[in-house]
Amino acid sequence: MAAAILLAAGLCGARRAEAVAGPRAAQVRGAAGVTDGNEVAKAQKAASRGAAPTISSWILDRSLPADVLYEDQQCLVFRDVVPQAPVHFLVIPKKPIPCISQAEEEDQKLLGHLLLVAKKTAKAGGLGDGYRLVINDGQLGTQSVYHLHIHVLGGRPLQWPPG
Amino acid sequence: MAAAILLAAGLCGARRAEAVAGPRAAQVRGAAGVTDGNEVAKAQKAASRGAAPTISSWILDRSLPADVLYEDQQCLVFRDVVPQAPVHFLVIPKKPIPCISQAEEEDQKLLGHLLLVAKKTAKAGGLGDGYRLVINDGQLGTQSVYHLHIHVLGGRPLQWPPG
Repeated sequence: MAAAILLAAGLCGARRAEAVAGPRAAQVRGAAGVTDGNEVAKAQKAASRGAAPTISSWILDRSLPADVLYEDQQCLVFRDVVPQAPVHFLVIPKKPIPCISQAEEEDQKLLGHLLLVAKKTAKAGGLGDGYRLVINDGQLGTQSVYHLHIHVLGGRPLQWPPG
Repeated sequence: MAAAILLAAGLCGARRAEAVAGPRAAQVRGAAGVTDGNEVAKAQKAASRGAAPTISSWILDRSLPADVLYEDQQCLVFRDVVPQAPVHFLVIPKKPIPCISQAEEEDQKLLGHLLLVAKKTAKAGGLGDGYRLVINDGQLGTQSVYHLHIHVLGGRPLQWPPG
């Protein structure tokens, strides 16, 4: 893989963004709903919002800083701003696929790439004892941001059932 | 996609298998550890077992019946015998990849195919209101069967965090 792995320090860059990016970011973050508590309630709101901009759009165009761990021409990896485990990052495609249920046949190689990047970034991040990959789809799946993303969680035993 | 979707009735075929397949299945199921309660404890045992046969091997070679929802040349989809949601099925590759952390670059298209099959089978199974895809890796990820599998869960609101 040609792109460099940018395993950044543990500071939560998107939290810094709240102070740095000002009202625009606050508006986006409010809309995207990734900064505060109840993911289930946020998912219900997000599902009715349609094709509104997401926090991922602003992270991808760099108008909202994030703690980026890896980037290549097809995807970006950054830490979740509300981590649910000692290590919790997101892998997103640069192509704006809203959710896994809207992925197309032509996305096959891209989807495989996202999984390979997830596992390589997990290894680079010290998750050799295991981790969990999660893709939420739609309202019942608790998807709160409508830009496809793979959650990678590790650093503690993940419980069962997975939510 | 050329292969037929075999959306089977809701009977849990692998539960039937406990009665049908006899001691061999019982031995495998004991080793693979997918029939009873504590997934975390089973994951700890499974992680130390190395390359032992898994329940997936027997389902793939049809020596252990399962409630198959879909099959093509690259993968098989069947219901989980210990469902964690009203709908809970597994997508597995026919290639014996033990876990996502051991997937290789050459598996890129296969991995993408597994995700596309997951989303298509979810749609065919009536999960239009959303679902969650989960891939467990290793001991901390609560992986209890060392044949790569994607859990697809739906039919109820999935909670957050995902385990």
